[in-house]
Amino acid sequence: MENSVAERLGALREVMTRCGVGAAVIPQSDPHQSEYLSSHWQSRRYLSGFTGSAGTLVVTLSEALLWTDSRYFIQASVQLAGSGIKLMKDGLAGTPSINAWLAANMVRGGKVGVNGWFISADAARGMENALQQYDLSLDFAFDPVDELWPDRPALPKGKAFVHELKYAGESAGEKLGRIREVLAERQVKSVFISALDEIAWCLNVRARDVKCNPVATGFLYVGVSDCVLFMDPDKLTDEVSEHLGMAGVRTRSYDSVLDFLEGLDMDERVLIDPSRTAAVVEHVLGGRAVDGESPVAMMKSRKNDVQIEGFRRAMVRDGVALIEAFAEIDYLMSEGKVVTELDVAAILREKRSAQDLFFDESFDTIAGHGPNGAIVHYSATEESNAELKRGNLLLVDSGAQYLDGTTDITRTVSLGDPTPLQKRDFTLVLKGTIALDMAVFPAGTRGVQLDVLAHQYVWRGQNNYLHGTGHGVGHFLNVHEGPQTIRNNNNMTPIAEGMVTSDEPGLYREGVHGVRCENLILTVKAAPVAHGDGTQFLKFETLTLFPFDTSLIDMDLFTAEERAWLNGYHERVRSSLMPYLKDDRSREWLEKATVQI
Amino acid sequence: MENSVAERLGALREVMTRCGVGAAVIPQSDPHQSEYLSSHWQSRRYLSGFTGSAGTLVVTLSEALLWTDSRYFIQASVQLAGSGIKLMKDGLAGTPSINAWLAANMVRGGKVGVNGWFISADAARGMENALQQYDLSLDFAFDPVDELWPDRPALPKGKAFVHELKYAGESAGEKLGRIREVLAERQVKSVFISALDEIAWCLNVRARDVKCNPVATGFLYVGVSDCVLFMDPDKLTDEVSEHLGMAGVRTRSYDSVLDFLEGLDMDERVLIDPSRTAAVVEHVLGGRAVDGESPVAMMKSRKNDVQIEGFRRAMVRDGVALIEAFAEIDYLMSEGKVVTELDVAAILREKRSAQDLFFDESFDTIAGHGPNGAIVHYSATEESNAELKRGNLLLVDSGAQYLDGTTDITRTVSLGDPTPLQKRDFTLVLKGTIALDMAVFPAGTRGVQLDVLAHQYVWRGQNNYLHGTGHGVGHFLNVHEGPQTIRNNNNMTPIAEGMVTSDEPGLYREGVHGVRCENLILTVKAAPVAHGDGTQFLKFETLTLFPFDTSLIDMDLFTAEERAWLNGYHERVRSSLMPYLKDDRSREWLEKATVQI
Repeated sequence: MENSVAERLGALREVMTRCGVGAAVIPQSDPHQSEYLSSHWQSRRYLSGFTGSAGTLVVTLSEALLWTDSRYFIQASVQLAGSGIKLMKDGLAGTPSINAWLAANMVRGGKVGVNGWFISADAARGMENALQQYDLSLDFAFDPVDELWPDRPALPKGKAFVHELKYAGESAGEKLGRIREVLAERQVKSVFISALDEIAWCLNVRARDVKCNPVATGFLYVGVSDCVLFMDPDKLTDEVSEHLGMAGVRTRSYDSVLDFLEGLDMDERVLIDPSRTAAVVEHVLGGRAVDGESPVAMMKSRKNDVQIEGFRRAMVRDGVALIEAFAEIDYLMSEGKVVTELDVAAILREKRSAQDLFFDESFDTIAGHGPNGAIVHYSATEESNAELKRGNLLLVDSGAQYLDGTTDITRTVSLGDPTPLQKRDFTLVLKGTIALDMAVFPAGTRGVQLDVLAHQYVWRGQNNYLHGTGHGVGHFLNVHEGPQTIRNNNNMTPIAEGMVTSDEPGLYREGVHGVRCENLILTVKAAPVAHGDGTQFLKFETLTLFPFDTSLIDMDLFTAEERAWLNGYHERVRSSLMPYLKDDRSREWLEKATVQI
Repeated sequence: MENSVAERLGALREVMTRCGVGAAVIPQSDPHQSEYLSSHWQSRRYLSGFTGSAGTLVVTLSEALLWTDSRYFIQASVQLAGSGIKLMKDGLAGTPSINAWLAANMVRGGKVGVNGWFISADAARGMENALQQYDLSLDFAFDPVDELWPDRPALPKGKAFVHELKYAGESAGEKLGRIREVLAERQVKSVFISALDEIAWCLNVRARDVKCNPVATGFLYVGVSDCVLFMDPDKLTDEVSEHLGMAGVRTRSYDSVLDFLEGLDMDERVLIDPSRTAAVVEHVLGGRAVDGESPVAMMKSRKNDVQIEGFRRAMVRDGVALIEAFAEIDYLMSEGKVVTELDVAAILREKRSAQDLFFDESFDTIAGHGPNGAIVHYSATEESNAELKRGNLLLVDSGAQYLDGTTDITRTVSLGDPTPLQKRDFTLVLKGTIALDMAVFPAGTRGVQLDVLAHQYVWRGQNNYLHGTGHGVGHFLNVHEGPQTIRNNNNMTPIAEGMVTSDEPGLYREGVHGVRCENLILTVKAAPVAHGDGTQFLKFETLTLFPFDTSLIDMDLFTAEERAWLNGYHERVRSSLMPYLKDDRSREWLEKATVQI
């Protein structure tokens, strides 16, 4: 039998006492500052019992607390019940920050232990600044997990593989050449990259180290002439080794990275992105570290022509799978069969995995029926699993990794007899999706400027959604990537040509239903028009190919322009997908779903 | 005869040599970091001959250069011709910043002279950081102007006067009480205020020290119990002195301010806004200075009920004056009379000055005919003054100071036979004005989020305007005030209830015409609606009352919703203004201008 959470915390406190640590901070993080973690790094989950993807555990000798955000308040309160861990609802007015709580609750002169691999250089600096005025010190070498976690999973052992040039469109050597140009511009000698998706992009190498994220665990050093990949040698097949060799990439073991960095010349200027690099790395580099934005993030976000063509082809296959899935769900329901939220996810996975070049899902499917649709990060469990019932809305947010592209789509559909309120909410959201899709804007425009186009109609109805409108999407890489966003924050990155971004306004009515309409959109050049000023304007090309549920549109709220957009989109969806549908049921479903309105 | 610019620069160089200054920087500024200056502070204008409201002169022993922005490129190139001063076009890619130019052109170890009264603490810090790495030092005591400018105008001597409570709606004592609450919150003992409009607001005192800006020259210190106004005693009438005494405000002479600050307790924490406080002041305060946003800026921006009612009444009088003016202009043209841009400005001034509570214009009228309308900060001169001709557009941006409110309005009108291009451009701009006016948004929304609503249609036509969409407007105070803006920058101030902001998209076709449609809009609470989420949403109330030229609307580009908005607005304009129009010509003009479309 496993240890209980209480026993685990007791063992942690013994280590803390031995190390003179008054408070242990255990973030949900890894040495690469990843959003999603391989099981090896799930120490916060192990110690707290809370399984959400965001949250930080703080343990003192007398207390234990877990900070998480609104997506996980309900889940955390259930999972923490009886553990003795207090839930701290991050983002609520009455909740202190972790730093403020530590300042208020620790004895002056105390020591806070946090593994410097699991906290970014930026965050560590913020923590030091906040705590030093209370005479609290930080111990970044505090690393109790191996000792506390007897059956800790090993680091991912799966083999890496080459992401072929016919999909990537640019060789690793060419990419390294472009990075080196940036090094010269920024007057640094090298860049050290910790982010797994950036490394995968640079080297055209992938693996299955993190669920839904086709990355390989490693670090990458790119110097003017040298390039070193730090990766478990067991992961390197002959094919990968040869591929790396051709790009001039040497390999060293994953755990030799700090020794390597320590050994660099003392006057070498090494660029790091402090928000995506562990505090430990910055500490080892010392005066050699030059903080700056990663040169890779922007390059990776702007897809080349081969990647864009791949996205377009992947969208056709994804659309076909979705048509087959929804046609089957409708058929099962019409036959009176029981269909649950988990069934929906399973059918989607089955249809997608039958498609060419399918690799994995790009995230766990969210299939939220009725009130479950209002839980933004809902994931059906055996306990919550709802049966689909006529009269309800079903929100399905899902996506896949194909070798030639990554998909992410949300549709909200009526299970029959839509109510006026369902139609109102759906229409306000869809109008926002369309308005952002139709935007034309000068080069240099940022996401914060465009966000209101998606928000404006739900706002006019005096509703809101608090998640972002758009995130970047990787190419056969993480479904969430930067540097661009479309949301209310001060992200200075422009929405540039070649970026693939989501367009996903929503409206959530607690206990009733949730609506979200999401397409992926590609930034493209706008063709010149008469009377334009001749400067370069950008616009969006809709990549996603799947109909919206027209039975949910309140035509009184829909303008002629919106109707024209939707009819044009449905025409394109039908003509793009119909040739690839093999069964009559799917063809009929698509025909009906794309009838002009 | 006056000295020539060359002679003035020669004299400046003699002073520089004597003081060991290698480069003199002469900003367009005053000790209050004002946008508009009284004549006493126009030293940059005196030394360079350039009369624009923005620009910095840099003089070395061998060179002289003037940096100004795109609004003034044409004017500056004309005014600087033959002066030996090189025009540096700020904002163009090839133009170095002043700091970069100094770094590249000065000998290491050199000294840059800039009067520390004319540069904000923020800007001075930026300059020091930029120059010290090139071993250049700064001399903030460099103050050659008195010596160089024999007939320099005195400081404004006009009397201050009380801004009555029936207009201000809140007494000086109450305002000081609110400021003191902020001092307690921010854990400082006092605040030192340099901005003239903030002082005028705090004390309910006005004067005519700066053209169009009804401010009185002074500084204000607000402590927990003490309050000191530094102002020329000649400006203080008995009425003002009594008024200040009742609010617990002591007065000292304007030039005693540094002595006073020097004499404060060494441990007193004094709040200053480093962007609106001279470097000299921060230097004198030393460790006592606590940088932070001015507590007054936000209070001043949120108008109280009395101010709002005043704005509404002022808008009626302003609308009446505008109707009378435009009716007269139309009449004169129909009679075949010559009407010029300067005539338009004069007629507007005449009609406004006949209105109750009129005090001054709020800025110099911009009346741009045909191609002149495309010059964003155009101001007609005897040389440029164009005669109004049928077939052209006329852009008129003007405003007034009334005791109960400040106005700022732009209308673009057809002088007959509008062309399709004129109609296209006008309609795209007006659609933007309307879209921003109709916005509904949650409390906390910032201007950068709303800006695209005004930009979206000109962008779709692949045109742009590079000025802001909206600026704050003072109440019987400066027509440009902060802290809010609606434009593409990272201003963190939300568009809050009670703020008065301009809504002024535009489209400028060089050599052809310019279009701008500007109303002032008040942020108000949105009444709850069915199916709203119950949180507080905000919206705008249109304050400005004057018709848009419907002959310029391309109905193919106008939606039903926009038509309904315009018809509703015109109905309101007519019913609000008609009762106050005294002559048939004006009544007929308004009747015709507000016919429903």
